[in-house]
Amino acid sequence: VEEATAMITIYHLGLSQSDRVVWLMEELGLPYEMEVFVRHESGYAPRELFDVHPLGRAPVIRDGKTILAESSAIVEYICTRLAGGCLWVAADADNYADFLYWFHFGPSSLSTMASFRMIAHRQNYENQDHIVRHWLRQMDLAFDIMDKRLADVPYLAGHEFTAAEVMILYPITTWARYNGTDFSRHPNIRAYIERVEARPAYRRAMDIAGPDRGAGIPPVYTMHDPEAAS
Amino acid sequence: VEEATAMITIYHLGLSQSDRVVWLMEELGLPYEMEVFVRHESGYAPRELFDVHPLGRAPVIRDGKTILAESSAIVEYICTRLAGGCLWVAADADNYADFLYWFHFGPSSLSTMASFRMIAHRQNYENQDHIVRHWLRQMDLAFDIMDKRLADVPYLAGHEFTAAEVMILYPITTWARYNGTDFSRHPNIRAYIERVEARPAYRRAMDIAGPDRGAGIPPVYTMHDPEAAS
Repeated sequence: VEEATAMITIYHLGLSQSDRVVWLMEELGLPYEMEVFVRHESGYAPRELFDVHPLGRAPVIRDGKTILAESSAIVEYICTRLAGGCLWVAADADNYADFLYWFHFGPSSLSTMASFRMIAHRQNYENQDHIVRHWLRQMDLAFDIMDKRLADVPYLAGHEFTAAEVMILYPITTWARYNGTDFSRHPNIRAYIERVEARPAYRRAMDIAGPDRGAGIPPVYTMHDPEAAS
Repeated sequence: VEEATAMITIYHLGLSQSDRVVWLMEELGLPYEMEVFVRHESGYAPRELFDVHPLGRAPVIRDGKTILAESSAIVEYICTRLAGGCLWVAADADNYADFLYWFHFGPSSLSTMASFRMIAHRQNYENQDHIVRHWLRQMDLAFDIMDKRLADVPYLAGHEFTAAEVMILYPITTWARYNGTDFSRHPNIRAYIERVEARPAYRRAMDIAGPDRGAGIPPVYTMHDPEAAS
């Protein structure tokens, strides 16, 4: 069948969460093409990415005539449509609820928590707004829950590696570098990160598309106002 | 089969996005029980909600012994496990990518955009941080894209009502009230909101669990610091 052998294109932005799509394809052993975009010197995505998708964000994939953005949508699409349910959990499985919770947790709740954390970290106004403080407390609680979960099972959905790992690793590694999150109170999360980072497919993907790839890409924390006078 | 007739429990917090789970069950015609929690006078969720789930958030559902939080996980769980794929789109359908994009857009990207918008709206620092401004521009762009989409089709996934509507309506109605979003430039979004709000199941659900239900629930914009001296 032609569709099964067609290759998707990954539009990858350096130092961005699009590295997880490369990782997913390496885990699945599926072929892909990449188009690589480099951040503007301000730290923002380059204008060319807006030609791929009107939000100018990454990741985006192309599958034939279909253009798809939004990380979690892309990962669900690849696993359930292109990979026959591989790295996904079946709806009748005992751990389906666990899988869905952790698959959605990264792009949904954790992403919101991390937004507030980034603001607090950049501007040091933890003490200025109780809503920001509320979300920082939520983030601490969430990592407590995650640490407890990982005391019982090696992967978030249970005993097997799934797409939930693919969704959560970037927020707890690359984002954590830039928003001041540390896991000093969370030994099981630290061990989990090591366990997942040791996977051959992860290492291959990071060599190809990871955050330390590409000299000259400015780290996120130096992002500055592209409209300001220089 | 006993499982098919077992009733889920919805832990609903007044004036919160847990109203979407009530709505989903009304759309599906499935039975459910509700436990209702009322916000603390500060605007925050009451401590009792932490006995249901350690993050103290809503919605949460119970299905037998399974407790599940995270809106998007709950909606996916109900549609794919309890409702046999109803209001979901099959992985081999032509509009699967459209469906997944819009299903995930609300809880993922839009939720992040709305967090920054709420901060900007509360504290009026649009002009203080270019990252906040960046996300406000992203939100404007996102609504432009959505408006364009809804010029072509009546529902986000295409010609039929799906779980994508269930995910997005709260952010574009209740949140919009409280963070200063208006759709004056987006006639197709306005018409879409009217079209979806006219659905009998939506009206039933809002009578049961909507934001205007329950006198005495403080509106979100009056949330104040529960730790501050009164």
